[in-house]
Amino acid sequence: MTFEEALSQIQPADHTAAQQAQQRWNSIAKPLQSLGLLEDAVISLAAMKRGKNIEIAKPCVVVMCADNGVVAEGVTQTSQEVTAVVTKNFTTGATSVCSMAQVAGAKVVPVDIGVSRDVDADGLIVKKIAYGTRNMAVEPAMTREQAVAAIEVGINTVIEFAQQGYDLFATGEMGIGNTTTSSAITAVLLHKSVSEVTGRGAGLSGEGLKRKIAAIRRAITVNHPNPDDVLDTVSKVGGFDIAGLIGVFLGGAVMQLPVLIDGFISAVAALCAVRLCPDALGYMLASHVSNEPAGKLLMEELNLHPFLTCRMCLGEGTGAVAAMPILSMACRVYNDMSTFSEIEIEDYQPLV
Amino acid sequence: MTFEEALSQIQPADHTAAQQAQQRWNSIAKPLQSLGLLEDAVISLAAMKRGKNIEIAKPCVVVMCADNGVVAEGVTQTSQEVTAVVTKNFTTGATSVCSMAQVAGAKVVPVDIGVSRDVDADGLIVKKIAYGTRNMAVEPAMTREQAVAAIEVGINTVIEFAQQGYDLFATGEMGIGNTTTSSAITAVLLHKSVSEVTGRGAGLSGEGLKRKIAAIRRAITVNHPNPDDVLDTVSKVGGFDIAGLIGVFLGGAVMQLPVLIDGFISAVAALCAVRLCPDALGYMLASHVSNEPAGKLLMEELNLHPFLTCRMCLGEGTGAVAAMPILSMACRVYNDMSTFSEIEIEDYQPLV
Repeated sequence: MTFEEALSQIQPADHTAAQQAQQRWNSIAKPLQSLGLLEDAVISLAAMKRGKNIEIAKPCVVVMCADNGVVAEGVTQTSQEVTAVVTKNFTTGATSVCSMAQVAGAKVVPVDIGVSRDVDADGLIVKKIAYGTRNMAVEPAMTREQAVAAIEVGINTVIEFAQQGYDLFATGEMGIGNTTTSSAITAVLLHKSVSEVTGRGAGLSGEGLKRKIAAIRRAITVNHPNPDDVLDTVSKVGGFDIAGLIGVFLGGAVMQLPVLIDGFISAVAALCAVRLCPDALGYMLASHVSNEPAGKLLMEELNLHPFLTCRMCLGEGTGAVAAMPILSMACRVYNDMSTFSEIEIEDYQPLV
Repeated sequence: MTFEEALSQIQPADHTAAQQAQQRWNSIAKPLQSLGLLEDAVISLAAMKRGKNIEIAKPCVVVMCADNGVVAEGVTQTSQEVTAVVTKNFTTGATSVCSMAQVAGAKVVPVDIGVSRDVDADGLIVKKIAYGTRNMAVEPAMTREQAVAAIEVGINTVIEFAQQGYDLFATGEMGIGNTTTSSAITAVLLHKSVSEVTGRGAGLSGEGLKRKIAAIRRAITVNHPNPDDVLDTVSKVGGFDIAGLIGVFLGGAVMQLPVLIDGFISAVAALCAVRLCPDALGYMLASHVSNEPAGKLLMEELNLHPFLTCRMCLGEGTGAVAAMPILSMACRVYNDMSTFSEIEIEDYQPLV
């Protein structure tokens, strides 16, 4: 499916199904609204799935792996080689998100969308747009055509796995330097100062943080990304991982399936997807608030309310996977619990 | 085990094991501290369990069920009979916490510690102190001896289930009127105004809230609970469920096993347990922040940092059970993940 086809096929989430789910929650034998955000999440799921199969039966986390040319500016603590090492580790289960996904019963789907060298690993989906992006502090990170191609990788990955029965897509990423690109996009799209939306990523020193902020400022100055043109912004100061995740969000919306947003980088991709197609928001669920400074800002911009405030900032999709069992529990209560009339006790009345 | 024996047997959590766990986290191949509170929770577990078996293999949620005489004051929206109905439902799986516990792989252990009538149900542990408390707005809710007996029920329930291999105890409760008693204890022990620590419980109206606040004020005026004497406070303005949960916290500390705090009512019991035995704090883990107004206050008083901010206020142990898979995931990463030296990539350096 092409990017344009995806945009044209996305339908709004179903408001009527949401209202019906709200009514069912109110009839269930427990105090009104006492499951808080868990109730809201199920209502959103009902809207996405037209009231049918409101459950998390077969979840997965799509991990977009790519390198970023901007690491040449000394904006990261570790070398680019780590991206390839960890990308391979996703296929052997030797990463944090793999350990957590085992507990959650979720499949990890690593995609090489732009790692700087070839990674030889069974189970890795290879859809490489290029061997890393160019250095955005000097020139555009990628062409507009590459951005669209990366988005299409995400869209078609979701379509393929949805056809295999996967019914929830969490977003994950691995790419040294990708908090730098994420901060750049955030600054442009939200018209914020770079220093306000830039953090230490994977443990940068004070000097490193200064270099990171300077590199982002230079990238914006050199490339003049247009805040009203998401594709222009992503191609100039983004990364293949972020573009791929934009596609995951759009693909979820096409398939009318939920996409669970991980942390900072995923939230940036979510914002881009919503700017490209506002109806895509109806297919997103929040999981946690990243400890990166812009994490909370992006959740507020999207008007989403995460379950978890664990000060996590690992990436890989770990925050989204951590929230999966909570979603499963919410669905279980929604589907299994008796209503007041069934158990013959008087129901709670709405507040007056 | 008696209450006094429990207090004398509780040992502090093991600071050395905590330091060793911190060192292991720092050696694991991921950015430092990037799992945030999940790392802190595992470090606490290591301290509790002396560095051994840092996992959640067999969790349970102990649900203390009891009635409160203060419901005669019109402080609740539903009748006292609901306590007995829901208590029975815990044994058939027909409650919210039972649905959620299935997802978490946790056993639900309901205890009748003071329901106002006999409940005939297989699987219910009957340790009734009395058929509900007296009306604290008129007289002490219970005698000091009854409070101690209820605490001992909690202690011995944990000891019994720990001997069966259960390795994590979540706290839960069911008792119409128990946010009223919880607010009363909070106001006394934290020297707060009643209105500041009293909420709508299970959906009380504005008029009902006024009655609730007035009843709590009357209970404090009539009984003069001594803020420096937890047993005096609990017996005068508490409930059997809260006293039983104090025992669960103390029992966990005796057995050197974690006790996961649910919401408002459980947090009140946790505070009482810490006041009785400060070392008990080392065996507590936070799960979520209740949407009741005093929920955040109590977490701050205990200096605990919950994972979840889902606006839940259902009780039954639902918030604690929701957090269980996250703890399991944290342990899985801690136990399974490779160290930097094992995967031969340079490690992240602490921030300078």
